[in-house]
Amino acid sequence: MSAPLKNDRFLRALMREPVDQTPVWMMRQAGRYLPEYRSTRAQAGDFMSLCKNAELACEVTIQPLERYPLDAAILFSDILTIPDAMDCGLYFEAGEGPRFERPVRSAKDIDALPLPDMADALSYVMDAVKTIRAELNGRVPLIGFSGSPWTLATYMIEGGGSKEYRYAKGLMYSDPGALHALLEKLAIAVTDYLNAQIAAGAQAVQIFDTWGGVLTEPAYHEFSLRYMQRIVDGLTRESDGRKVPVILFTKGGGAWLEHMAETGCDALGLDWTVDLGQCRARVGDRVALQGNLDPSVLFGSDERITAEVRRLLESFGPHPGHIFNLGHGINQHVDPARPATMMSAVQQISRELHAGSN
Amino acid sequence: MSAPLKNDRFLRALMREPVDQTPVWMMRQAGRYLPEYRSTRAQAGDFMSLCKNAELACEVTIQPLERYPLDAAILFSDILTIPDAMDCGLYFEAGEGPRFERPVRSAKDIDALPLPDMADALSYVMDAVKTIRAELNGRVPLIGFSGSPWTLATYMIEGGGSKEYRYAKGLMYSDPGALHALLEKLAIAVTDYLNAQIAAGAQAVQIFDTWGGVLTEPAYHEFSLRYMQRIVDGLTRESDGRKVPVILFTKGGGAWLEHMAETGCDALGLDWTVDLGQCRARVGDRVALQGNLDPSVLFGSDERITAEVRRLLESFGPHPGHIFNLGHGINQHVDPARPATMMSAVQQISRELHAGSN
Repeated sequence: MSAPLKNDRFLRALMREPVDQTPVWMMRQAGRYLPEYRSTRAQAGDFMSLCKNAELACEVTIQPLERYPLDAAILFSDILTIPDAMDCGLYFEAGEGPRFERPVRSAKDIDALPLPDMADALSYVMDAVKTIRAELNGRVPLIGFSGSPWTLATYMIEGGGSKEYRYAKGLMYSDPGALHALLEKLAIAVTDYLNAQIAAGAQAVQIFDTWGGVLTEPAYHEFSLRYMQRIVDGLTRESDGRKVPVILFTKGGGAWLEHMAETGCDALGLDWTVDLGQCRARVGDRVALQGNLDPSVLFGSDERITAEVRRLLESFGPHPGHIFNLGHGINQHVDPARPATMMSAVQQISRELHAGSN
Repeated sequence: MSAPLKNDRFLRALMREPVDQTPVWMMRQAGRYLPEYRSTRAQAGDFMSLCKNAELACEVTIQPLERYPLDAAILFSDILTIPDAMDCGLYFEAGEGPRFERPVRSAKDIDALPLPDMADALSYVMDAVKTIRAELNGRVPLIGFSGSPWTLATYMIEGGGSKEYRYAKGLMYSDPGALHALLEKLAIAVTDYLNAQIAAGAQAVQIFDTWGGVLTEPAYHEFSLRYMQRIVDGLTRESDGRKVPVILFTKGGGAWLEHMAETGCDALGLDWTVDLGQCRARVGDRVALQGNLDPSVLFGSDERITAEVRRLLESFGPHPGHIFNLGHGINQHVDPARPATMMSAVQQISRELHAGSN
């Protein structure tokens, strides 16, 4: 039996239940902007060694909670663990981001891909989840996550990050059947992966569809949303007697929120380009919304940070169902003093808002 | 007196007048995907030498017209000619894109920036316009262009291309007055630049706001659209007894089309992520729309290209006011046979559509 949850604001807001103040966490909150992270990472050696060491992954997951009044922790891991476990040969080149030794570019390559074994090649992730849950000891909920099938597929096909998605979109427009075969495998793998994280102790899960926004509307439906729908349908939705909420985040997907809300997920992540109040008007009676401060606001003055936090909170209004977050991961060059300003503004301003509505 | 225009479909569609078939051109149509372009470029030496040689710039501008039934030519030039003329020290590093020797990062840097002299540092652009107009001899209209103030500012502040706009957004959120001072200078420069192109013979102009889509909605209004509005207000709108239409293109700006249409521009460029029919329903009674095939469709089969062209044309319907284009520049790896397939599909399918509506 796990320790009882001492702070459940995040889970309550995801279920659109009233809260005393708007819960807050930051995408990539365990990251390079924190000197203590850089120190642990140096100790681990390379990035994947840090991900694969449960004790160190737990340490960096907890680090931002020691600095800031965060309402959730997120598993420290990489978005590309699944393709790595499918034998694509993940490696990192200094300053270049992730690369794959064996990109997947044909129906034959895709047929040959093994489904990853959660109990073997990915067991280090579940070990990290268990270690973090034990260490958190009910302090805040732990979020598990995965990349979306389309997003994982882009890295596997391109062999790394991309600006133009020449090979991934080339496959989409020349051999869509092969791309579907890959996405089907990935949808199965992501479902298994997130269910294994939930079994290991994740209390909410987020699917990062980082590159869904580079698609046309029909292609988004056919090649990204369809497979996220399958995952939502296949997830364990309750654990420890409590609902396990699912958050979908398509960066650049602001035009498609209504369709995302129809999947049966509990919340949508929003990037900073959309107006939070308008999004609430569009879908806020169906799902919670998470976001959406421009991460670059954290390069601004304290006054400007507070003003932007106020703008967002007032735009959402005193309704339940908002989780404050950045619209994308925190930048590595941010001064660690700035998120503290942001979070104290969220606390103070949202308490006034929520008090006014009671 | 210039030669009479033999093909005015493009200009008619921009004014939302009826046409026999939907006019078509491609962003970056004079470019590396064409072997004849690569050959001329090799002859010129580096990229800026090609831009600065009126005869060679004219040659590459005309090259795609010799291959394809295009309804417009676009001046061959670089988006960064203005910052180059403002003494920022433009250079190109192989495989790295444009760079500036002297980035502009403070109010002091910005104060010191000279306004560019159209008759001196940028006269090579006007020479190219005149040369191309003479060579076209009324075959199709010639489009002039400029980057938007915000887009130019990002390159000047970052010192090159960027993924996160750390310095440009940092300035926005820490010293907005300094950023406004830079944007004001750039709005004056862009207005002068486009008016000089129009005086030299450009028959329509497009403002490329390539990076407007990385802004929040209020920041888009304050730092990008406001300055494009000033430019639209300051442009020469008639030349040779004919209207000179203005096209605004904010990549990633799909949510803000209504606001862009209110500037008094004649047309909006659309990237591929938005639904053309929905955009027409939103703003098509006020402006023409240009776009919006996913450039990656040109990596697909002929059947797929034709199907996507049909989908777009039918989505817009038999109304006047559509210019067919890609949603972004053509990719350098596209087989030059593919745009021919696209253009013949545009001709054939749009002729049926427009005939049905008469």
